[in-house]
Amino acid sequence: MRLSGLSLSIFLLLLLLIHPVYLTAQNTSEDGYRAWLRYENVEDDELLYEYKELVRAVVLRGNSETTRAIEVELKQAITGLLDMEVPFHNNIQVNGTLVIGTPETSEEIAGLDFANKLETVGDEGYVIENAGIDGYETIVIAANSNIGLLYGVFDLMRQLQTYEDISDISIHSAPKVEYRMVNHWDNLSRLVERGYAGLSIWDWGTLPEYKDPRYTDYARLNASIGINATAVNNVNADPRMLTDQFLEKLVVLADMFRPYGIQVFISINYQAPISVGGLDTADPLDPEVRKWWADKADQIYEMIPDFGGFLVKADSEGQPGPFAYDRNHAEGANVLAEAVESHGGVVIWRAFVYSPEQEDRFREAYDEFVPLDGDFKDNVILQVKNGPIDFQPREPFSPLFGAMEETNTMLELQITQEYFGFSYHLAYQGTLFEEALDADTYAKGEGSTVGDVISGEVFDYKHTGMAGVLNIGNYRNWTGHPFVQSNWYAYGRLAWDYTLSADEIADEWMKMTFTNNEQFIDPIGDVMMESREAGVNYRSPLGLTHLYAQGHHYGPAPWTSDLPRSDWTAVYYHKADEEGIGFDRTETGSNAIEQYHEPLESKFRNIETTPEDYLLWFHHVDWDYEMDSGRTLWEELVHNYYKGVEQVRRMQDQWNSIEGLIDQQRFERVKALLEIQEKDAVRWRDSCVLYFQTFSERPIPDQFEKPEHDLEYYKSLENTIYIPSPRYD
Amino acid sequence: MRLSGLSLSIFLLLLLLIHPVYLTAQNTSEDGYRAWLRYENVEDDELLYEYKELVRAVVLRGNSETTRAIEVELKQAITGLLDMEVPFHNNIQVNGTLVIGTPETSEEIAGLDFANKLETVGDEGYVIENAGIDGYETIVIAANSNIGLLYGVFDLMRQLQTYEDISDISIHSAPKVEYRMVNHWDNLSRLVERGYAGLSIWDWGTLPEYKDPRYTDYARLNASIGINATAVNNVNADPRMLTDQFLEKLVVLADMFRPYGIQVFISINYQAPISVGGLDTADPLDPEVRKWWADKADQIYEMIPDFGGFLVKADSEGQPGPFAYDRNHAEGANVLAEAVESHGGVVIWRAFVYSPEQEDRFREAYDEFVPLDGDFKDNVILQVKNGPIDFQPREPFSPLFGAMEETNTMLELQITQEYFGFSYHLAYQGTLFEEALDADTYAKGEGSTVGDVISGEVFDYKHTGMAGVLNIGNYRNWTGHPFVQSNWYAYGRLAWDYTLSADEIADEWMKMTFTNNEQFIDPIGDVMMESREAGVNYRSPLGLTHLYAQGHHYGPAPWTSDLPRSDWTAVYYHKADEEGIGFDRTETGSNAIEQYHEPLESKFRNIETTPEDYLLWFHHVDWDYEMDSGRTLWEELVHNYYKGVEQVRRMQDQWNSIEGLIDQQRFERVKALLEIQEKDAVRWRDSCVLYFQTFSERPIPDQFEKPEHDLEYYKSLENTIYIPSPRYD
Repeated sequence: MRLSGLSLSIFLLLLLLIHPVYLTAQNTSEDGYRAWLRYENVEDDELLYEYKELVRAVVLRGNSETTRAIEVELKQAITGLLDMEVPFHNNIQVNGTLVIGTPETSEEIAGLDFANKLETVGDEGYVIENAGIDGYETIVIAANSNIGLLYGVFDLMRQLQTYEDISDISIHSAPKVEYRMVNHWDNLSRLVERGYAGLSIWDWGTLPEYKDPRYTDYARLNASIGINATAVNNVNADPRMLTDQFLEKLVVLADMFRPYGIQVFISINYQAPISVGGLDTADPLDPEVRKWWADKADQIYEMIPDFGGFLVKADSEGQPGPFAYDRNHAEGANVLAEAVESHGGVVIWRAFVYSPEQEDRFREAYDEFVPLDGDFKDNVILQVKNGPIDFQPREPFSPLFGAMEETNTMLELQITQEYFGFSYHLAYQGTLFEEALDADTYAKGEGSTVGDVISGEVFDYKHTGMAGVLNIGNYRNWTGHPFVQSNWYAYGRLAWDYTLSADEIADEWMKMTFTNNEQFIDPIGDVMMESREAGVNYRSPLGLTHLYAQGHHYGPAPWTSDLPRSDWTAVYYHKADEEGIGFDRTETGSNAIEQYHEPLESKFRNIETTPEDYLLWFHHVDWDYEMDSGRTLWEELVHNYYKGVEQVRRMQDQWNSIEGLIDQQRFERVKALLEIQEKDAVRWRDSCVLYFQTFSERPIPDQFEKPEHDLEYYKSLENTIYIPSPRYD
Repeated sequence: MRLSGLSLSIFLLLLLLIHPVYLTAQNTSEDGYRAWLRYENVEDDELLYEYKELVRAVVLRGNSETTRAIEVELKQAITGLLDMEVPFHNNIQVNGTLVIGTPETSEEIAGLDFANKLETVGDEGYVIENAGIDGYETIVIAANSNIGLLYGVFDLMRQLQTYEDISDISIHSAPKVEYRMVNHWDNLSRLVERGYAGLSIWDWGTLPEYKDPRYTDYARLNASIGINATAVNNVNADPRMLTDQFLEKLVVLADMFRPYGIQVFISINYQAPISVGGLDTADPLDPEVRKWWADKADQIYEMIPDFGGFLVKADSEGQPGPFAYDRNHAEGANVLAEAVESHGGVVIWRAFVYSPEQEDRFREAYDEFVPLDGDFKDNVILQVKNGPIDFQPREPFSPLFGAMEETNTMLELQITQEYFGFSYHLAYQGTLFEEALDADTYAKGEGSTVGDVISGEVFDYKHTGMAGVLNIGNYRNWTGHPFVQSNWYAYGRLAWDYTLSADEIADEWMKMTFTNNEQFIDPIGDVMMESREAGVNYRSPLGLTHLYAQGHHYGPAPWTSDLPRSDWTAVYYHKADEEGIGFDRTETGSNAIEQYHEPLESKFRNIETTPEDYLLWFHHVDWDYEMDSGRTLWEELVHNYYKGVEQVRRMQDQWNSIEGLIDQQRFERVKALLEIQEKDAVRWRDSCVLYFQTFSERPIPDQFEKPEHDLEYYKSLENTIYIPSPRYD
């Protein structure tokens, strides 16, 4: 009995000991910092038991920065997920050993019959399989490189995080594109262009001296979804990025990212030979300029041997470029490509160009770049935004995809929600990304999707890639809105494998980020999958586009007409008049439709075969045009605007229904943000419906609640309502 | 034996359970978020035992938001400090009960003979004493208000955090000034003027919907040091602060701060009657303007019944004010004072004014305000910066202190390190604050310190106060540099009691923020106490001032001479020439010295009796003037610049000596920041010494290391070196 008392004492003592620690942990653990790498305890007892049996020990081969990163990650993950310290052994001693290695580093792997499998997964891919080795049952993670092993480890941990059965595991995975890149539009001042989550995470003021552990967590999160490249500074580039003081800071980032397989790129300013180099010209064909870029590249590679290369926004929105010297984009890009070529670097040249004079901005990039196809060096990659205008809630794909047979072409997606409510609106972009990647270009007949093009399946590209304009800042939870993290995640997963579905990615992400509880997953999965469509509906349904207030792109201003450039106005895009609304891009208009391959061209030319989601992108349509629903265009437009608000309200209801299933901290935050979103959605709806009504002169159907204010009121908000962004000081 | 086995199993099971939680906690607990309210376990076993005996239970009387805040705080603190859950009882049941209440709420307190004691501590003070009640030994925290109790609780917890003996405790404490205020120079965009720790912590974009728990932690940290008022927006004020949308957001902050005794103030823009109210004028004597301000005040008090009032920067650095209507400061302030008077509000009017035309900016505020003494309403408080120029590393006190017998005058200190290396340099400001408060004005003979003046001891002020320009942002650790937190702490403690010493405050702060280990406290206490003087030495020793690059105030530019205003240049301040250096403020110069009371005036007039720390503030001194040390002025100047760098190097050594005594996370961060500081200090020293040498034409004494570069090089850095602040995009 004395022992029992002692046992009870110890129990209580330990309970007390645990208590304060839990308190501390609770205060911080659900603040979103860990994102999808939370590694919370598996709550299903049966599964937990199974996992523990299958992962009783680890044999990790190799001795490199990356294998050390794997060890740290695995220890943290297994401690969290399985509530146990997993032993690392020098050889297989028990069933349930996780064996990790390459054929070079691991005799165990070399001894398996994996040669064919490993050949198919290439440099960065991996194989996860059950295997009997020396009479022991093991799970093997094999790859041709240590980075492949790291990706495999993150995959296996994802299986555990999402409660997948791993008793009979067999995963062969390889990335479908070479450069899986994030682009930071971060200024050196730490203000982030189109950033809504605080300042840049790059604290240039304390670099190179201070190696913020957050940089490692950044690398972990990226590597866990397969990102392997980052361009750290804004494409509207500060030339100082090329000076010694910044290159020294960059070395630290490169060193911290290297174990995680992440290459650094920098965005360059085309005038740098003048402003940094002191030359008189930045003419790409000038020998001194060529030498300057070559010397600069040599210097950088001396400091960062695995430097990725340069990202360039030239002759676009005021950025300098080769045009000043009567050189074209190819001539402009090739001088840079030459400079990095011998080091294995690439130049990523953005195709986002449009001049104030053109009749239809839609046409511009295609008209400018297609004639240059074949003129770029083969270590240049053209980076093309998914749509021909600018990251709108819904755009048809850019006809450049499928038109550049001899020019490496990669896709640029916007992860940050410039046009989607900043970090205040829940708008899962996985569906948008999926739509962009799955769009069929018909470049080589049916089944030539954008994804196929950029992965080099359609044309034989030397380099392939995908870039995402990242949405993170120095906010503790990286992105502000907890759900905005999902867009970073979805982007990475799709960059690895564009055939994944937005739905399954959302499912994974929710389980890793919140809970595996189906009472949460089911309704909130619906919320995520519906959220982008809701955003389209309350802003710009049926193919309307760019109805934003100028500059900040947060609130509605479909009435803007008087700006320095007509293609910055809203009226340029919607062209509403008494007859109807929409941009005629058929032969009676700009004829931009001709840029698409058949049968798309014919499909879009014909109003009857144009998908209604894209209707007003391609046609100026009568207000009374009859839609598939039987409603007139006007009624359908109103219907969609009201539907958008209803969708947000349903999102609110669904969110409120899951209270108690997750931590209160993130619950409250999302709840509050959805209230903001609902208010904004109503403002968007009412502003647009009342404004377009001045053209249609038709009533808002009776079944809908009437706008609370008149149009003048909504117009007045454009200049008085608060815009939550430090860019608008 | 089976039980023993069971006991062991439980033990091990629980050890395993604890483990991952500790891991999680360790990842985040030392990130600085908790600042000085870490409440870490008491590590001295004997003391821990004693504390546990003395705080075995709590009887907390009263039922208000504040008493609920006390309960939450106490539970968190005691759980952390003493590793135990303290029970809250309805009445005293055990020895070692902590009894907390006012005479109104607690029979126990009412029954004690505390009436006299409580009278002396006033509305916000408190008494902590041992008392026998109903035969039980207790510690009593008694006050006249719940807020007094909260302050008492924070004090008692501080005793525990700093390992003080509380077995025979007797503390009677009351604040010496009425308004203990922090000023946020936070723009509505969230950029913080002179802020170096990220964006504003006020996330206006998610208010009022989202009540960020951080706002409560902000209130806790402030209340723990006695702060009772906050002006939330920049004195360079955005008029939108007075619009409904922002007042609605402000209500949430006021509601969250109220339990912690913190009143909200807002900074107003003097043109608001025009820009917000739509009037044609903002003339303070215009009846419509008066009515507009009165109505606006009524509206605010309707929303926030305990609203503090308005903070005003008028006719200063481009801010609008009454001068546009030919009204003086008193007329300008009184209209606002009238508006808030019936609600118990005050108007805080800043005295930081200077016009481009004046001969000596030093004189300006005095010359402008002294003639108005007596003209201000008695709910106006004049807010005067400690020095006559602008928060320099060392300034003589502003002669306005002691000159305004009939005008409430409060002190403005700058907590944020605008002139002290932002958040990159370790520069404990407690010593500067102490120096400012202890300066004797001789307003009523010896012993009329600035502290005495602002606390109403010298003149009979209706309202008293102190304001500190705060240094926090949305960085996880509030201030960027871990040691920069100490300035917020020191400011609050001195606002409560200006007679505290900087030394004892540093000691408290280190113990609460890092460790009670003397091996840390001794050397790092030296570092803190020396750090401000080091900053003076490497920037502007012997009374030099404002040698900063224009705009950012980070790096040196003693050569600046060509700016829109002469008093923004460095040469205006140092007046170096072939003869000597320094600003002659005697009768042969601006005669600003006349603004001081005797015997200070005579002391400063005479170069021989002027303290050398202030020498060049008051005199233009020959390069060969013999200093107390026997060195010439030139040699002494060089000596001081070199000493400043040596001091920083010693700070580095001392910091490196404590590795292992605190968490590695903060150790590494401070270590890296000290490296930056050393680099900056060398640049300051070399820039200034080489520049002043062009006038003195005397050598740098042989014993000193020679500057690595020439003056032209240092000059070139002014425009090329990176300035780490989002304000300089």
